[in-house]
Amino acid sequence: MTPVITLLTDYGLEDGYVAACHGVIVGIAPGARLIDVCHLIPAGDVRRGAAVLAQTVPYLPPGIHIGVVDPGVGGARRAVAIEAGDRVFLGPDNGLLSWAVNASGGTTAAYEITNTDLFLSPVSPTFHGRDVFAPVAAHLGNGLPISELGAQVPPDRLVHLPAPTSYRREGAVEGEVVSVDRYGNAQLSISAGDLGSLGVRAGDTLAVWLGRRQLSVPFRETFASVPPGDLVAFADSAGLLAFAINCGDAAQRLGIPPGAHVRVSPAR
Amino acid sequence: MTPVITLLTDYGLEDGYVAACHGVIVGIAPGARLIDVCHLIPAGDVRRGAAVLAQTVPYLPPGIHIGVVDPGVGGARRAVAIEAGDRVFLGPDNGLLSWAVNASGGTTAAYEITNTDLFLSPVSPTFHGRDVFAPVAAHLGNGLPISELGAQVPPDRLVHLPAPTSYRREGAVEGEVVSVDRYGNAQLSISAGDLGSLGVRAGDTLAVWLGRRQLSVPFRETFASVPPGDLVAFADSAGLLAFAINCGDAAQRLGIPPGAHVRVSPAR
Amino acid sequence: MTPVITLLTDYGLEDGYVAACHGVIVGIAPGARLIDVCHLIPAGDVRRGAAVLAQTVPYLPPGIHIGVVDPGVGGARRAVAIEAGDRVFLGPDNGLLSWAVNASGGTTAAYEITNTDLFLSPVSPTFHGRDVFAPVAAHLGNGLPISELGAQVPPDRLVHLPAPTSYRREGAVEGEVVSVDRYGNAQLSISAGDLGSLGVRAGDTLAVWLGRRQLSVPFRETFASVPPGDLVAFADSAGLLAFAINCGDAAQRLGIPPGAHVRVSPAR
Repeated sequence: MTPVITLLTDYGLEDGYVAACHGVIVGIAPGARLIDVCHLIPAGDVRRGAAVLAQTVPYLPPGIHIGVVDPGVGGARRAVAIEAGDRVFLGPDNGLLSWAVNASGGTTAAYEITNTDLFLSPVSPTFHGRDVFAPVAAHLGNGLPISELGAQVPPDRLVHLPAPTSYRREGAVEGEVVSVDRYGNAQLSISAGDLGSLGVRAGDTLAVWLGRRQLSVPFRETFASVPPGDLVAFADSAGLLAFAINCGDAAQRLGIPPGAHVRVSPAR
Repeated sequence: MTPVITLLTDYGLEDGYVAACHGVIVGIAPGARLIDVCHLIPAGDVRRGAAVLAQTVPYLPPGIHIGVVDPGVGGARRAVAIEAGDRVFLGPDNGLLSWAVNASGGTTAAYEITNTDLFLSPVSPTFHGRDVFAPVAAHLGNGLPISELGAQVPPDRLVHLPAPTSYRREGAVEGEVVSVDRYGNAQLSISAGDLGSLGVRAGDTLAVWLGRRQLSVPFRETFASVPPGDLVAFADSAGLLAFAINCGDAAQRLGIPPGAHVRVSPAR
Repeated sequence: MTPVITLLTDYGLEDGYVAACHGVIVGIAPGARLIDVCHLIPAGDVRRGAAVLAQTVPYLPPGIHIGVVDPGVGGARRAVAIEAGDRVFLGPDNGLLSWAVNASGGTTAAYEITNTDLFLSPVSPTFHGRDVFAPVAAHLGNGLPISELGAQVPPDRLVHLPAPTSYRREGAVEGEVVSVDRYGNAQLSISAGDLGSLGVRAGDTLAVWLGRRQLSVPFRETFASVPPGDLVAFADSAGLLAFAINCGDAAQRLGIPPGAHVRVSPAR
């Protein structure tokens, strides 16, 4: 069967970095199917990388998933391979993979990647994507057992990224802006389920606090449910509450970058 | 035979949206050949998407062509599959596909996409690319007859985008800037044929009106026919009249964004 | 065997230009494996294109490598195919390919591409990537002998791009900034070997002159060897000396764009 190997990095697209990884993989596993998840994760933004990977992975075929947002490359952090169901995640042990692993059912087994026979030689201290993760992924794709990579790591020793906070208090849900997409839609850490548990249904109106500001925001099926230019809240394609402006940029108009605190309750 | 599936969207490259579509397709049609036409169509810019798709499709192998620039996603607009010769176009019925369909010989048959058995479940109201068009394309790639998608739509009921205006008047051709590419070349809605019908040949000089400004512009084979820094008109790679500055940015220097009106005639 | 065809251009990703090339190749050589090396080379920046191609090609499988950064397209410059070991490079004869050819062991044989039977018809004077290089690459991928492309060109008649300058003088090495990557890391034309020949080892401190400014910069294995915010020099993933700021942007803070002169010696 054709192995599927996916890549998420913060390498950007202005250099040949991604291509070098592709080239290494194809050189070792010529039949592999490569899928680029995203290479425009802001440089070093592990949380953003973790969010994009976790939200995308349910739609990827089972395979080998490389994630490299690795400000500590060449330092003391481990390189790990984490098995989760029928998926294997490869990357730095800095939490980048942790949300995607959770979204895939949790860690089945984990290994430190130390088998230098599998690496390119020499290994650049600053480009483990090319010299470590790409060749290791290709060898796994060729059928190498994951246990050949190195010693097992107890799952509870892996670095876990704290999930974006979200909690219920006094009939409201509080959370934070997780990410802002290209359309200016602001995705919150508040799930559609949390909202439902407060009795909110599509068609209702939300009371939203952004710091000291309070807004009334219609909660609808989609941003196209309101007239162009209007603000709307909806359950987005990842099942999370999001704010949008139909044909506009909600994050910019509201001034809510990732990390901004938000409180939501049913409007009285 | 390997099915070819192509994708044009306004999803951008900063998220995992495109990868999710790829993943869904590969999960259903593991052998498909995917070609990304463009994912940086400005958000919601249906006309720009239509122009890029129509100009690229003649160079793509016959296949299944997904187009998603869909500001009305989740609203009342239909999802359609349009057969044109040996190609099938999938997307919202908002005109995005219409110029590419024309460039492919016109509609042979059209279907509303309503067969929910083919969709992911649940369907996000805001991400039909992933949940509707990607799986439907993959099933078509696997050989599913297009008639399984839903009821036929009479071709004259499909939404057609008005073509960029271009008309001859008093020995001149008038048109508009269709698009500006990365080099700052401004492509007009005036075809090389229109110009030829006025008797213009490479080597001639054009009289160009941009609003009240009038310019003399050499009409040449290519931008490299004039010295660096000089303005030139030429028939571009889509067969349309374009303005360029050799090693410079014509659209910026001339101040002609998409939509700007242009009048051209042979210089006396 | 599956032919590998790679593409490096300055076409950008906002248009369908790259897809048109992919489409043409796949139409002729349906089994080809395509790898995009980079399409965001700054428009017309032949030196940047040459650097990215040369630094990436050692990691690409043997194949057919298209490079198109071609400000003279449609003018008098030749289109060439250059054989270097088990690789073939296709592109304009403007020096773009020369560093990659050197990195691949030098020219074995070179041919002018003049066999119009292999081109699309008509050939747009401004889009040889789509109409000349893509179909020629696909035919080579299908097994066409390179000698069918046109007459041989003596290797010493090919255009060679002058390499970035680097020379030793009075116990120091002088060079220039070759490129700045997405992280703000500034790569110099000074190789790690040059530095080693001055007796510099990881752990030492460098005396660095940037114009009249002098800095002391630690030379380490990687940027993660210094605290966040600190400046560091290291041998980068291409074996060249680079300046970085751990979790910061060195090129911006130091004010050293590509071309800036740098002088380095061991600190006393």
